[in-house]
Amino acid sequence: MSLRRLVPPAACLLAAPLFAQTPAPKPAAPPTTASVLAATTAADWRPLDPENTLYMEVAGGRVVIELAPAFAPNHAANVRALVREGFFDGLSINRVQDNYVVQWGDPDGDDEAKARPVKNGKKALAAEFDRSAEGLPFTKNPDGDVYAPEAGWSGGFPAARDPKAGRAWMTHCYGVLGAGRGNTADSGGGAELFVVIGHAPRHLDRNITAFGRVVKGIDRLSSLPRGTGTMGFHEQAAQRVSITSIKLAADVSEAQREKLEVLRTESDAFRALIEARRHRREDWFLDPVGKVELCNVPLPVREAKRER
Amino acid sequence: MSLRRLVPPAACLLAAPLFAQTPAPKPAAPPTTASVLAATTAADWRPLDPENTLYMEVAGGRVVIELAPAFAPNHAANVRALVREGFFDGLSINRVQDNYVVQWGDPDGDDEAKARPVKNGKKALAAEFDRSAEGLPFTKNPDGDVYAPEAGWSGGFPAARDPKAGRAWMTHCYGVLGAGRGNTADSGGGAELFVVIGHAPRHLDRNITAFGRVVKGIDRLSSLPRGTGTMGFHEQAAQRVSITSIKLAADVSEAQREKLEVLRTESDAFRALIEARRHRREDWFLDPVGKVELCNVPLPVREAKRER
Repeated sequence: MSLRRLVPPAACLLAAPLFAQTPAPKPAAPPTTASVLAATTAADWRPLDPENTLYMEVAGGRVVIELAPAFAPNHAANVRALVREGFFDGLSINRVQDNYVVQWGDPDGDDEAKARPVKNGKKALAAEFDRSAEGLPFTKNPDGDVYAPEAGWSGGFPAARDPKAGRAWMTHCYGVLGAGRGNTADSGGGAELFVVIGHAPRHLDRNITAFGRVVKGIDRLSSLPRGTGTMGFHEQAAQRVSITSIKLAADVSEAQREKLEVLRTESDAFRALIEARRHRREDWFLDPVGKVELCNVPLPVREAKRER
Repeated sequence: MSLRRLVPPAACLLAAPLFAQTPAPKPAAPPTTASVLAATTAADWRPLDPENTLYMEVAGGRVVIELAPAFAPNHAANVRALVREGFFDGLSINRVQDNYVVQWGDPDGDDEAKARPVKNGKKALAAEFDRSAEGLPFTKNPDGDVYAPEAGWSGGFPAARDPKAGRAWMTHCYGVLGAGRGNTADSGGGAELFVVIGHAPRHLDRNITAFGRVVKGIDRLSSLPRGTGTMGFHEQAAQRVSITSIKLAADVSEAQREKLEVLRTESDAFRALIEARRHRREDWFLDPVGKVELCNVPLPVREAKRER
C-alpha cells in the first residue's frame, strides 16, 4: 500500500510534469486526465494574452491572474488602468476568510482623507454581472447544475448560461477573481478585488462582477493565515500582507514574463477532459462516478516550451 | 461604502457572536442566516458526544473533529481505538494539497521496518462507503444535486441518498473527514486520515469512507503551506507538521474540553436556515439567488454557555 496513493490527485492547476512526461497510454485504455492531457496537440493550447495577464507580487512570490474581458470589458479595462497607474503597488491583502475569499485593495479606501487617489482608472463602475449569451462560445457540462439552467466553460473560464433569458455569466469557482462592491450594484469596479479560496460560493454569481481567474500561484493566497476580524478582515495593520506590485504582463520585459498556456475550453481535447472527469478510470477509483460538477473540472495550465 | 461590506460573510462555522449578540429582527423582516440563528432555542442544539469528538493538537492549537459512527461505525470505533493507544501522537501531517485535502498519519507507514505498530486498533478495515438509508434521518435539500439522486443533511453531517437503492452516504463537503486508502476498498481503516480543504471533491463519495467533520479550527489545517511534492506530499521530513496528540474528548479532563454545540440538522431551525440560504435576504444581495447547493449550507457550531 503506497502512501502516495491514499487519496487521488486534485485538479491539475499547472501540473506540467504530468503531461510533459507521461507517455500516452495504449489506445485501448479508457481515457484519464493524464492520458487526455498527454494526447493534446499544440493547437489545443493558447498562450495568455499579455494585456489580460496580471502579475501580483506578494511575499513569497508571484500570483498570475488572467482577466476575462469577454465577461466584463469595462472592469477588465479599469483594472488595466489601475494597474498601469500603480494603484495597487504597496497596498495590501486585507481580508482572508476561510473557505471563502482573499481580498485586497486600499485598507484606507473608506477614509476620504487617507484613501489613495485614483488617477486614470475609476473608483467605481456600473456592474457587469452578466452579458448577452450571443456570440459567447460555451462548452456545456452535460451533468447540469444546481444554480443555473446551464453550466459550462467559455474561453478558459467557468461559466453559466440562461438560454431563455439569453444571458451568460462567469461562475464563482475556486480561483475566480471578482470585484468587491458595497450594497449597490455600481459600487464596485476593480479597486477592491477578491479571489475565491474555498468551496464555490455560487450565490455570488450575478451578485458581483466576476471577470478572471488565478492561473498560477493561488496557494500563495489560499495558504495565508486567516483574518481574525469579522468576515476574515485583519484587525491589525501589521497582519495585512503587502502587495509589492501588480503589473500587466505586457508591461514587464520578455525575460520576466511567465510562459504559460491554457487548454482551450472550446477544443475537443477539453471535451475529452470533461469526459475523463465524469468517468473516472484511474486505478484508484472503484466507482467511476459518472458525473462531474462544474467546478470539479480542472482548467489546465502548462509552462510553454521556451523558444531558444 | 464600507470596506467590510464588499463581499458578504461566508458560512458561519463557529460564528458565536453572530447569534449570541444579534437581536432578533422584527417578525416582518425576511429571514436571514443571522435572524434564523438568533431565533433558535436550546432544544435546536446538541452538545458533542465526548466519545465521538477528537482533539487534534498541532502547532498553533487544537482542531476539533466530530466522528459520525452512524455512517461508518467500524471506522469510528477503530479511530477511537487508535487514538486511545496513542497511535497518532508524534506522527505528522504529511500532505497538504491545494484545493483538495490535508492528510496525516505515519509517514513511514509503507516501510514495514519503520512503521509504527498498531496495537489495539486495526491497520485496515472493510470499507464503509455507504450504508442502508433505513433509519437514517435525512433533511433533504430541495434544490437537487449533480452527483446524487438526493442530497441533504443527517445528524449534523452533509449526506446523500439513493432512495431506489436504499443507500445513504456522507458527502465530501469542505471540512469532511475521510479514511485514506490504497487501490483496494479494504486498504483504509483510519490510520491515515484526511480532511477536505477545498471545493467539495464529490467524486470521492462512495469511493472512500467519509465519517466525520471538523467543527472547530479547520483554518489550522487549511492555511498550512502546501506540499511541493506529487499530490501535495511534503518532500522533506522537516516540512511535515507535527501532531502533538490526538485525544478523545472523553479522555481529557472536564476543564480541557471544548463546550461546543451543533445545530440539529433535523430541527425546524435548520430547515429555516436552509431557506435563508436558498433565498438570500441580507441587504448586500441584489439577486436573492433562490437555490442553494449542499455544501453551501453552513452547519452551525457554537460555544455553549458554560455552567458555573
